[in-house]
Amino acid sequence: MSPIDRAALARDIAAAALLRGTFTLRSGRTSSYYLDKYLFSTDPRVLRPIGVLLAQCVRDLERAGPGAWAGGPVARLAGAELGGIPLVTAASLETGLPCVLVRNRKKDYGTSKQVEGRIEPGDRVVLIEDVATTGGQALEAVESLRGVGADVVAVVATIDREEGARENVERAGLRFEALFTKRDLGISE
Amino acid sequence: MSPIDRAALARDIAAAALLRGTFTLRSGRTSSYYLDKYLFSTDPRVLRPIGVLLAQCVRDLERAGPGAWAGGPVARLAGAELGGIPLVTAASLETGLPCVLVRNRKKDYGTSKQVEGRIEPGDRVVLIEDVATTGGQALEAVESLRGVGADVVAVVATIDREEGARENVERAGLRFEALFTKRDLGISE
Repeated sequence: MSPIDRAALARDIAAAALLRGTFTLRSGRTSSYYLDKYLFSTDPRVLRPIGVLLAQCVRDLERAGPGAWAGGPVARLAGAELGGIPLVTAASLETGLPCVLVRNRKKDYGTSKQVEGRIEPGDRVVLIEDVATTGGQALEAVESLRGVGADVVAVVATIDREEGARENVERAGLRFEALFTKRDLGISE
Repeated sequence: MSPIDRAALARDIAAAALLRGTFTLRSGRTSSYYLDKYLFSTDPRVLRPIGVLLAQCVRDLERAGPGAWAGGPVARLAGAELGGIPLVTAASLETGLPCVLVRNRKKDYGTSKQVEGRIEPGDRVVLIEDVATTGGQALEAVESLRGVGADVVAVVATIDREEGARENVERAGLRFEALFTKRDLGISE
């Protein structure tokens, strides 16, 4: 497998998914840019190398030194609907690790389970995130995973908007990694 | 790429996802078995060969002769939340074709789009389905895709429970293909 050209991939992600304009974020704040995560996660020319980098990141975390989590084998990956599912699927195919899918907590799914796929209490899990802003969505998924007994050890975001996600995730006792920051995508805001 | 052993894959799918007991289906009917689609779509050892077969099926359809659809290049694949997303992602990575993600119509997603990802009016689309029973869920997704101008030409199910999906999908003017039927999985009900 040839190494991934990170700079070229960052340009491809920006070309596929970076929209300029005036956007209102979930927090109510306005932003001069928007990253449509679906525009990169549905393009296999971009998703495939992202999957390779996510897999490398998970394997690096397993060898990690002291920190919130001191390393060791990961049992499963997790992704939250809807945006995290293509990413965790690509990472699962690359690592060979099985995954679980976390449903959005705010919706009423009747008898649906909160976490789909096989998971055992104590399983060490890494959550794969699409675009991290404050990390709120990731931490909601972490809570759901903990609710079924998972030992969630890290959040790996594809893109970090650098608006508090790292701090909030680390404050929750988890490692936080990101493949790219907004600056890697040429965003200076 | 080595050819996929279909019989072995059918056994792997059954081992991963076939539950025996008494189950109430969405239609209200009871069944002596249940296929938990998440148990096969979250296991990369099973998902990878399924992705290869889905890709082969799409390429075969492109070369297909007369029928509801006479063949020709497919522009995009589609998958419906939540169960179809890992499958369409695997098929997209195998074919190199981009995909779109179709949201469930019954939920209120506020400003969310019904179809995520890039799609142009007239794009020829194949819908990838997880487990087809009557085909109702697939046809709901087809309606959403037609609503954004897609030319949906076929539904490819991973597993056909053989409870009317083929008839209903063909009646809607689409081709229907399935990688496996319930009999392939050893279900005689």
